[in-house]
Amino acid sequence: MFDDTYFMREAYKEALKAYDDGEIPVGVVIVARDRIIARGHNLTERLNDVTAHAEMMSITAAANAIGGKYLKGCRVFITLEPCSMCAGALYWAQPDEVIFGAADEKNGYRTRGGSLHPKTRVREGLMANESADLLRDFFKSRRK
Amino acid sequence: MFDDTYFMREAYKEALKAYDDGEIPVGVVIVARDRIIARGHNLTERLNDVTAHAEMMSITAAANAIGGKYLKGCRVFITLEPCSMCAGALYWAQPDEVIFGAADEKNGYRTRGGSLHPKTRVREGLMANESADLLRDFFKSRRK
Repeated sequence: MFDDTYFMREAYKEALKAYDDGEIPVGVVIVARDRIIARGHNLTERLNDVTAHAEMMSITAAANAIGGKYLKGCRVFITLEPCSMCAGALYWAQPDEVIFGAADEKNGYRTRGGSLHPKTRVREGLMANESADLLRDFFKSRRK
Repeated sequence: MFDDTYFMREAYKEALKAYDDGEIPVGVVIVARDRIIARGHNLTERLNDVTAHAEMMSITAAANAIGGKYLKGCRVFITLEPCSMCAGALYWAQPDEVIFGAADEKNGYRTRGGSLHPKTRVREGLMANESADLLRDFFKSRRK
């Protein structure tokens, strides 16, 4: 039951919360031993803070939950490919695995530069269509 | 009196505070119209948080001071070349200028990837020796 799709669906639920709040819909959950220890969604508008990406706040929350600053033994589920800032934070945090959904060809770290830690496995594509559709809907509704 | 060296010296004072607290000594001040609106130093150890770099916290503080999330009209003085995470945050914040002291050939964004915003001017080298010496002293004392 607690498979990768379950956790990505939880990250997607976080993205939906962002959507409902008028934030760019990106969500994250961080998992340690099949337990969600942190979750978050983008809050840049509400907090008036460009650093308030879902990943940044979730990394901080997970470190608090663990009581240590490195996310060894953790897996990070993100609905969208992280930007350079968030990839940089993940680089320092060194989780075991990063699983992201949709690719971000404009602002993702693979386009803009940066990298995850060599110890971190990376996978992509899980629920990519749903996450990309949510983003597309969001920006379409904003343009109206 | 309030020239660039004045502001970099203030950033250096922040780095000294980090040094005294056993933190990697990096300091930042953010300046708007020759007034310091935010200052900070590295707090990753005390906060147990890999995202608690001087730049990240100063960007958040400056946005609070301004009441808007973009740092247009601001100049950011950093004692060390920012890492990919902090460069990514600066990319989103879009300050007018980033002035950093010492180069970071190991972990700086020019090595690890990432970029500042095309609207942001970048200068380097101001008080580079002092800032590099402080870092060298710190790591030397740690190895003992």
